[in-house]
Amino acid sequence: MSNTIGKNLRVTLFGESHGEEIGAVLDGMKAGEEVDYSLIDSLLAKRRPSGRGETARIEKDSYRFVSGIFNGKTTGAPICVLIPNENKRSSDYDVLSSLARPSHADYAANEKYLGFQDYRGGGHFSGRLTAPLVALSGLVFPLLRKKGMKICTHILELGGVKDRDLVYSSLTDGEADGLFEERFPVLDPVGEKMEEKIEEAASKKDSIGGVTQTAILHLPVGTGEPSFDSLESVLSSYMFSIGGIKGIEFGSGFAFKDGTGSTMNDEFYMDGDMVKTKTNHNGGINGGIANGMPVVFNCAVKPTSSIGLKQDTVDFKKKEDAVLELTGRHDPAIIRRACVVIDAMTAFAVADSLISSFGKDVL
Amino acid sequence: MSNTIGKNLRVTLFGESHGEEIGAVLDGMKAGEEVDYSLIDSLLAKRRPSGRGETARIEKDSYRFVSGIFNGKTTGAPICVLIPNENKRSSDYDVLSSLARPSHADYAANEKYLGFQDYRGGGHFSGRLTAPLVALSGLVFPLLRKKGMKICTHILELGGVKDRDLVYSSLTDGEADGLFEERFPVLDPVGEKMEEKIEEAASKKDSIGGVTQTAILHLPVGTGEPSFDSLESVLSSYMFSIGGIKGIEFGSGFAFKDGTGSTMNDEFYMDGDMVKTKTNHNGGINGGIANGMPVVFNCAVKPTSSIGLKQDTVDFKKKEDAVLELTGRHDPAIIRRACVVIDAMTAFAVADSLISSFGKDVL
Amino acid sequence: MSNTIGKNLRVTLFGESHGEEIGAVLDGMKAGEEVDYSLIDSLLAKRRPSGRGETARIEKDSYRFVSGIFNGKTTGAPICVLIPNENKRSSDYDVLSSLARPSHADYAANEKYLGFQDYRGGGHFSGRLTAPLVALSGLVFPLLRKKGMKICTHILELGGVKDRDLVYSSLTDGEADGLFEERFPVLDPVGEKMEEKIEEAASKKDSIGGVTQTAILHLPVGTGEPSFDSLESVLSSYMFSIGGIKGIEFGSGFAFKDGTGSTMNDEFYMDGDMVKTKTNHNGGINGGIANGMPVVFNCAVKPTSSIGLKQDTVDFKKKEDAVLELTGRHDPAIIRRACVVIDAMTAFAVADSLISSFGKDVL
Amino acid sequence: MSNTIGKNLRVTLFGESHGEEIGAVLDGMKAGEEVDYSLIDSLLAKRRPSGRGETARIEKDSYRFVSGIFNGKTTGAPICVLIPNENKRSSDYDVLSSLARPSHADYAANEKYLGFQDYRGGGHFSGRLTAPLVALSGLVFPLLRKKGMKICTHILELGGVKDRDLVYSSLTDGEADGLFEERFPVLDPVGEKMEEKIEEAASKKDSIGGVTQTAILHLPVGTGEPSFDSLESVLSSYMFSIGGIKGIEFGSGFAFKDGTGSTMNDEFYMDGDMVKTKTNHNGGINGGIANGMPVVFNCAVKPTSSIGLKQDTVDFKKKEDAVLELTGRHDPAIIRRACVVIDAMTAFAVADSLISSFGKDVL
Repeated sequence: MSNTIGKNLRVTLFGESHGEEIGAVLDGMKAGEEVDYSLIDSLLAKRRPSGRGETARIEKDSYRFVSGIFNGKTTGAPICVLIPNENKRSSDYDVLSSLARPSHADYAANEKYLGFQDYRGGGHFSGRLTAPLVALSGLVFPLLRKKGMKICTHILELGGVKDRDLVYSSLTDGEADGLFEERFPVLDPVGEKMEEKIEEAASKKDSIGGVTQTAILHLPVGTGEPSFDSLESVLSSYMFSIGGIKGIEFGSGFAFKDGTGSTMNDEFYMDGDMVKTKTNHNGGINGGIANGMPVVFNCAVKPTSSIGLKQDTVDFKKKEDAVLELTGRHDPAIIRRACVVIDAMTAFAVADSLISSFGKDVL
Repeated sequence: MSNTIGKNLRVTLFGESHGEEIGAVLDGMKAGEEVDYSLIDSLLAKRRPSGRGETARIEKDSYRFVSGIFNGKTTGAPICVLIPNENKRSSDYDVLSSLARPSHADYAANEKYLGFQDYRGGGHFSGRLTAPLVALSGLVFPLLRKKGMKICTHILELGGVKDRDLVYSSLTDGEADGLFEERFPVLDPVGEKMEEKIEEAASKKDSIGGVTQTAILHLPVGTGEPSFDSLESVLSSYMFSIGGIKGIEFGSGFAFKDGTGSTMNDEFYMDGDMVKTKTNHNGGINGGIANGMPVVFNCAVKPTSSIGLKQDTVDFKKKEDAVLELTGRHDPAIIRRACVVIDAMTAFAVADSLISSFGKDVL
Repeated sequence: MSNTIGKNLRVTLFGESHGEEIGAVLDGMKAGEEVDYSLIDSLLAKRRPSGRGETARIEKDSYRFVSGIFNGKTTGAPICVLIPNENKRSSDYDVLSSLARPSHADYAANEKYLGFQDYRGGGHFSGRLTAPLVALSGLVFPLLRKKGMKICTHILELGGVKDRDLVYSSLTDGEADGLFEERFPVLDPVGEKMEEKIEEAASKKDSIGGVTQTAILHLPVGTGEPSFDSLESVLSSYMFSIGGIKGIEFGSGFAFKDGTGSTMNDEFYMDGDMVKTKTNHNGGINGGIANGMPVVFNCAVKPTSSIGLKQDTVDFKKKEDAVLELTGRHDPAIIRRACVVIDAMTAFAVADSLISSFGKDVL
Repeated sequence: MSNTIGKNLRVTLFGESHGEEIGAVLDGMKAGEEVDYSLIDSLLAKRRPSGRGETARIEKDSYRFVSGIFNGKTTGAPICVLIPNENKRSSDYDVLSSLARPSHADYAANEKYLGFQDYRGGGHFSGRLTAPLVALSGLVFPLLRKKGMKICTHILELGGVKDRDLVYSSLTDGEADGLFEERFPVLDPVGEKMEEKIEEAASKKDSIGGVTQTAILHLPVGTGEPSFDSLESVLSSYMFSIGGIKGIEFGSGFAFKDGTGSTMNDEFYMDGDMVKTKTNHNGGINGGIANGMPVVFNCAVKPTSSIGLKQDTVDFKKKEDAVLELTGRHDPAIIRRACVVIDAMTAFAVADSLISSFGKDVL
């Protein structure tokens, strides 16, 4: 527990990296929404390893919906998506039955589940489980788009290379659509340099982290709730369910420490009959509630924990020191693939907040 | 919605800054725990304005428990604490009925609640509501302490002045106890300098932000859950319910962007028969689960939004530009007072996670 | 746990029979709804002992709202109502610290809470706690009424005396309004006879049970959810939170055992352009979903457990047999007072189901 | 929504009668529990049509676990079970796309889901969906049994034929075990007569209802919670998720109306050092909390709504009166098959209540 999240639009997740199938259930979807299979395909394609140096474990991700879809449309009943696990090489992971990969859940899981966890490929903790989440998000994006909302994520910083910061510049709808579809989503022409940094890490059998930035455009004023369902609370709890994310900041976030009220407050002004703010240090959220400006947040993504270099560790069964040299497949950076997962989790969080604040018909 | 948080230890919050009373309900407490009134008094004292330049609105915080306590002990029934609002000067806030204070919830709340919200002093969005939360936390700390756990928060950075970073150094139990009781909690002798920075901001009718750092010592391995109830998800959702917090990072957090797997992975080793990690970049959490190392996280605290300087804004009723000059009482920095609130929310989050993972008897 | 119920309109309950105050919090109310104090007064009056032979413990029920109401209207923030406990005679209950009243929670509570529960007057288990629930329901009824819905409860059977059965006859809106306001709610002229039965029980220091029947008129088709949030699931879970209710049946309920599909199925027909059923054996619910017919359900109310006659019991501290002779105040029948509590819980259940199915604006 | 139930042991349900597969997810199971496949087989066998006159739709129920099981044991991760839908004859149900079967969800679902629901065989509302629930319950029963608890359900009354009533007589552990395994579970030799009544209904193309009775033996004193998670609230909300159940009563239930406090209160006495009650009118529950006596409750099961006789109905698309003559397969009584479903839902409810009250280690 708990592998279910959401109040009015609920996602339940199950599966292990090396089981027969992984899947997720989406409950609370409106009836009558057409399934856009090509959108789902493209989202899954974006999540798949494709870049220079990314893992050689290629999954076809041949998802299928086993419920909740009838004649190509949602029925209102819970939607279960299943994705088979193909191209497994479980023997790569035999070592994990007793050696803890540093910064992975192996050791903590072993203690928690008394040694009964499925350790192959990280089991239930594997990033592989984001695939069904991404597939289901393909049902939610169209709802948000129809109401004019856009969600997109780009790589804000990686290996010292920085992209344009949306806290301090604006984003057009067209740019947002572009980012959403980009394999390697950046705004400025920094992708090439970033991919070089990734290749560089790969060539050293090492890995590299970075920072993503997500924008939600045209979220209605008033979305979110005071106290415990603040937009920040909701979004952060969804984001931290993604493995490898270790920080989140809204608007100027940690940069608030270097400013003062007079430099960091977002002054209001009238733009025609619209209330706007001159700056967006608060990332579109005041008191937990959307204020109509773009919601902007950054996520810290750690370097892939799996690296090819030798590492010290312990054998948690024998309770002795050990050395680990991973030979399995792994990405030198998960940040590119994390973008579409962040988009997916953002879509669930936003849709649930919208329904909770305004009711199902808001979507 | 939703002013209730927690799965097995639940907190419900109610009240407005200028109502008769504010309060909170704690449900799920064990029966038979003695109430430590002096602890509660000292926590509330720590939350009260006391520092140089802090708000002149002094609240006695004469809390009372109206349920769940019998003969000085918890009964197992829900515990409601009430705190009267004294020393209100509602007329200070008349202006808020139509002028939006920049970076406050006023405007968003007005849109959300169609003008019916209690706007006085920020109403339900006021930081005043943290008082009953702090009071109730005084019932939870003793449970955690009995089992050897410590929670403490210090000011890691303010106005360019930095305290010792617990991601990169260790903390003794004695130091943790010390911090917990400190009015202005810092580890190195930097408090004086920080307070000067706060006074400086105050003297300019301005405000200042900073970063807090929280440590949880001796949290049992295995606390937390995979997927959506990861320790990071749970802690962040509690933290972002505190007004003014705009970012959270676990362990090295955003600094992960500047490292590689080989420099940032936490290698395991045997310390006697204990499994430990050489470094703690992951802040004690792997895959959402406590790994036995200290849990360490930082929160970005923005400068107090209320400042005495003139600010541009809008009159959201008349829908026109306006100028705001606040004359009410406010702190030039909320960070000192935020520390004990963060401790309180951490206590609730940790206790709920512990009970959810291990059952009530773990506490 | 758990003293909170509801998904989108949430009620949290706290207090003990002999504490200073009891109360409840309602979260999720629309903003801008005028408070109808006279309605609340009349609901509380209906709940108060008033009948022949009813308890002499008269409570003024001088409730006050401490949050969520501003200028006489709801603000959208959580609404806490508090009711002081007056006219307590705790000494009446000293005996309960060790003697279990038969059919009361005393013994089970003592085991559960290890002797730390507030035993005075049943503590947190007291029927007294229904008062704040009834008070809060006074905020919900107007919302339902505005949309044309009616909720009312009458005594269907007591001491062999039967009132008209709404499964087998219809109820006009006017009759529903009448019942809702009646101190002793019955449809046929059977009230006098029923009150005689109650007096008869009282004269023997005994008590008497009965059956209530509740009708919900004009609930929109489609309210309720499949599987676990069926209308029956939701309504029953609210009803069984009321002490003394030991059974619930929808429509023909237990009488289904004596019929067949051909006699008990509700055939559909067109009434103009409205779909209706010829009979209403299913009590307006098919597959957990409202079908547009009146929702009708019955509750079994047991005789008041507190009686003046001597009863065998145990001293649960000394672990020995004992005899109990209650001298405290108690009603010979709670069924009359239960009606308004059932109405209140029905209002919460219906409003939450409506919001969950259709969104806040349905109300 | 909501197809997820439970606080600490959660079940999520998905699927439609004529989809490829149906399934359910169980989250919160302990790690390391051996899967008893033969128990699951026997539970599913019990749920399958087998009796005289029961539906000819034979399902092999070749379930498979796709997650949460590793090396034949539970891992602690969520367990998804899938069951293919075989032997579908969807054309039997074409008529349901516009004709409402009386007492079925067809019409209400059509209004709720705007015509987009999967109408074949009742879709998501089909009793077929109880199969994965029964399969998963096979993982929970062993946990309860290990701690000495027994759950069993028998047919208390059908067609005027009555079995022994456990409110007024006791049940040995051996009898409970026997009932649990019985295809047609009754205590007295009344099964033959009851099956005759069912055959009689079948021969008339009609159907018949009845009453089940469930006993939970050796449930620890203190299980359950005050207010909204009373054992009655929890059990009833699980039971009413089963199609065809229209009433529930605990202990003497509706018979309380014919008694008085003096005849219906359960007096306590010491049985050695155990506190017991002389009678069990309250069905083992006082104030929502288990008192250590057997928990006993009855469910009203309506006659199968699907009958072969001609019925009046409406065409809900054309909005006109119509006549329906069902030719599909259906049982003349679902009560025999309902028993194992009730057992399953009781197991989930009891396990969740136990964990919520005492923590995971109670099981």
